[in-house]
Amino acid sequence: MSKPSPISGFPEWAPPQRMIEQYVIGRIQRTFELYGFAPLETRSVEPLDQLLRKGETSKEVYLVRRLQEDPGGPTGDDALGLHFDLTVPFARYVLENAGKLQFPFRRYQIQKVWRGERPQEGRYREFLQADIDIVDRDTLPAHYEAELPLVIGDALSGLPIPPIVIQVNNRKVSEGFYRGVGLTDPDAALRAVDKLDKIGPDKVAALLVETAGATEAQAKACLALAEISAPDGSFADAVRALGVEHPLLDEGLAELVTVVETAAAHSPGLCVADLRIARGLDYYTGTVYETQLRGYERFGSICSGGRYDNLATAGSATFPGVGISIGVTRLLGLLFGSGELNVSRSVPTCVLVALADEEHRPASDRIAAKLRRRGIATEVSPSAAKYGRQIRFAERRGIPYVWFPGADGAVDEVKDIRSGEQVPATPDEWTPPVEDLRPLVS
Amino acid sequence: MSKPSPISGFPEWAPPQRMIEQYVIGRIQRTFELYGFAPLETRSVEPLDQLLRKGETSKEVYLVRRLQEDPGGPTGDDALGLHFDLTVPFARYVLENAGKLQFPFRRYQIQKVWRGERPQEGRYREFLQADIDIVDRDTLPAHYEAELPLVIGDALSGLPIPPIVIQVNNRKVSEGFYRGVGLTDPDAALRAVDKLDKIGPDKVAALLVETAGATEAQAKACLALAEISAPDGSFADAVRALGVEHPLLDEGLAELVTVVETAAAHSPGLCVADLRIARGLDYYTGTVYETQLRGYERFGSICSGGRYDNLATAGSATFPGVGISIGVTRLLGLLFGSGELNVSRSVPTCVLVALADEEHRPASDRIAAKLRRRGIATEVSPSAAKYGRQIRFAERRGIPYVWFPGADGAVDEVKDIRSGEQVPATPDEWTPPVEDLRPLVS
Repeated sequence: MSKPSPISGFPEWAPPQRMIEQYVIGRIQRTFELYGFAPLETRSVEPLDQLLRKGETSKEVYLVRRLQEDPGGPTGDDALGLHFDLTVPFARYVLENAGKLQFPFRRYQIQKVWRGERPQEGRYREFLQADIDIVDRDTLPAHYEAELPLVIGDALSGLPIPPIVIQVNNRKVSEGFYRGVGLTDPDAALRAVDKLDKIGPDKVAALLVETAGATEAQAKACLALAEISAPDGSFADAVRALGVEHPLLDEGLAELVTVVETAAAHSPGLCVADLRIARGLDYYTGTVYETQLRGYERFGSICSGGRYDNLATAGSATFPGVGISIGVTRLLGLLFGSGELNVSRSVPTCVLVALADEEHRPASDRIAAKLRRRGIATEVSPSAAKYGRQIRFAERRGIPYVWFPGADGAVDEVKDIRSGEQVPATPDEWTPPVEDLRPLVS
Repeated sequence: MSKPSPISGFPEWAPPQRMIEQYVIGRIQRTFELYGFAPLETRSVEPLDQLLRKGETSKEVYLVRRLQEDPGGPTGDDALGLHFDLTVPFARYVLENAGKLQFPFRRYQIQKVWRGERPQEGRYREFLQADIDIVDRDTLPAHYEAELPLVIGDALSGLPIPPIVIQVNNRKVSEGFYRGVGLTDPDAALRAVDKLDKIGPDKVAALLVETAGATEAQAKACLALAEISAPDGSFADAVRALGVEHPLLDEGLAELVTVVETAAAHSPGLCVADLRIARGLDYYTGTVYETQLRGYERFGSICSGGRYDNLATAGSATFPGVGISIGVTRLLGLLFGSGELNVSRSVPTCVLVALADEEHRPASDRIAAKLRRRGIATEVSPSAAKYGRQIRFAERRGIPYVWFPGADGAVDEVKDIRSGEQVPATPDEWTPPVEDLRPLVS
């Protein structure tokens, strides 16, 4: 075998980075559980026809098949693909298991997803997402749309990362406004406005005229709407000042005011109403969310989602939902790239038990076993090299303590190899300072 | 969308089962870390040619390609497949990153793998494995082969599952013995003996004659070897009593005695030498492990591995390793099937905050926020239904406590809905009994 090389778009963190990732996932998971979300994992594959229901993402799907497929036989698969998000599999799971679930159903799901996108900074082909969703049967109360950003704010605020801002909009505001100004193809208008960040207002105006049948005045109104942004309910006054009327607009404004005002009361500065947020076309029907990491705005949203009323629907059964997804790999990729996150050592090990000679390995093993039973991560030295080399083994990994078994019944000693301090110790009693017990993320 | 149905071989646990799985994974992970194994995750895909290096597994590989592959373009992939185990990707990772790693390198890896096997009880197409491996540069000390089963014993012994027995053999014993009796194709002999459990001794004897060129007497000797089993070093005497001599046999016996005696000293009853264990052909060159769950022997090994000297080799660089892998999904599938594992509730939630009317939602939200800040998982009632209905909402999910906000400045009360006991409480002070704080696995 020749030396292998990485595959573009499929990141692999080194163990210290993986420790940071586990810390971040643990914090997110713990927060989700504090809000009562139950854990779920769905299979990695879905029937291809389900993945292709939404045209926008179809070009990114990975197809999966057995190398020696056996189409005529009893194990012949229908075509399968890897899931490209966790929302489509969740909606399928809800439909499949509706009879066994309690509604409203709150679940979190932290899993890899795959997209055949062109790899670039912040964009991967295999990446980890952490999702929460709430679905209900038939109808879903609007207060859940206000709750989800607060959960995300809590989950991310405890981490050593830059602050976030969640930008919120509501599809009903955009669609109601577009209809209110007299546009008949609000989807085309949404698609055009969605390009605002990329191509700027002049080209969006031209696109509105060209693809959405807008007049110059209508295009100008759409752009004026997209420019509105506020950290509180005052955005609604700015919208009304544009003089457009539509029942759907009123409904959307009321919902969006609730989301923004609830957030302002609970976590000032966390959410802003930003009426340019569109979230592609996807499956959203109400509130939509995007999230900027301050200082990393150019890499796009690290946490997105929204309300979907029609994703989980079979016959007369319908399960409207709202969800939001943290792009864990994107978030970590950006922060690893800028050296924002560090861990105090490259292994979990707190103590290395030294070895006088190979005959004494069982004695060192017993010391290690005692320390482990007391929750102290411990390794025994790989070989009975000179003590200087054994200490360097620990040093290179950041292991803070080396344990020297006492010869011939003498008491053991433990050395803090950072300070050089060495003290007598017994494995049934010695305890490291709590900050040394596990690798620290900062 | 019509009601979807499951895909055979791709299990999905319900949230209560997923909570049990998380508990099991957490316990395994914590034990691996106590032994100083660092975490690693590799990408899910490997170049297909790497996955096909071992003929035995090639028929099980899943091929992955972008639906709209673009072979001429800059993003054209080489053929990729999903990994079928975690050892082959780990060996590749070590070769790719050898310059950045510290050796000996201890890592654990808990990830999904995929195999296109025919699904049946205990066999899946997508399943979770939990691996530990130790690799070193150039040479790997034999004491690691004795350490790994002890880690597994520790990891699984703390779980509410039946006891395990790790069966250990050594490829050198088998190969040395076969050569010692005069067989020239030890691989063919190993393949034949590997079928002992499936086809019985008579057919294995016939196969040895037919495929490994054995005489009746040689076949009989091979079967006599395979029948030897002991919980301590006495197995070596039984082997020597068969009167076969070979240097490789001596080497293997010495290694296997160390593994079994170390285990007997540390964890009596955990390991037995069982000379019929072959582990297919794969990549093993020394010690091999299989593990039986008592009472579930018919479903095969739930934890397997061995030593591999030649898996991670590129040019003159060689990284011998030893590893062992817990089949988490198989283990859980068996135990879920027999109802051996239970969890005390179906959601993480400990407290449901009741809602007098929708106007008081912010007040109930504030109570929930205070409880969460103190580590108590809390939901607010989805609607201001009658209190009886809100209590039933909690009951159906196994949520033990319902919190009633005091009206008009009166003190709040909290009800244990199992006993009916209701007491005054404030969200800054009330604490549930520790056994109610999180769902309990038993």
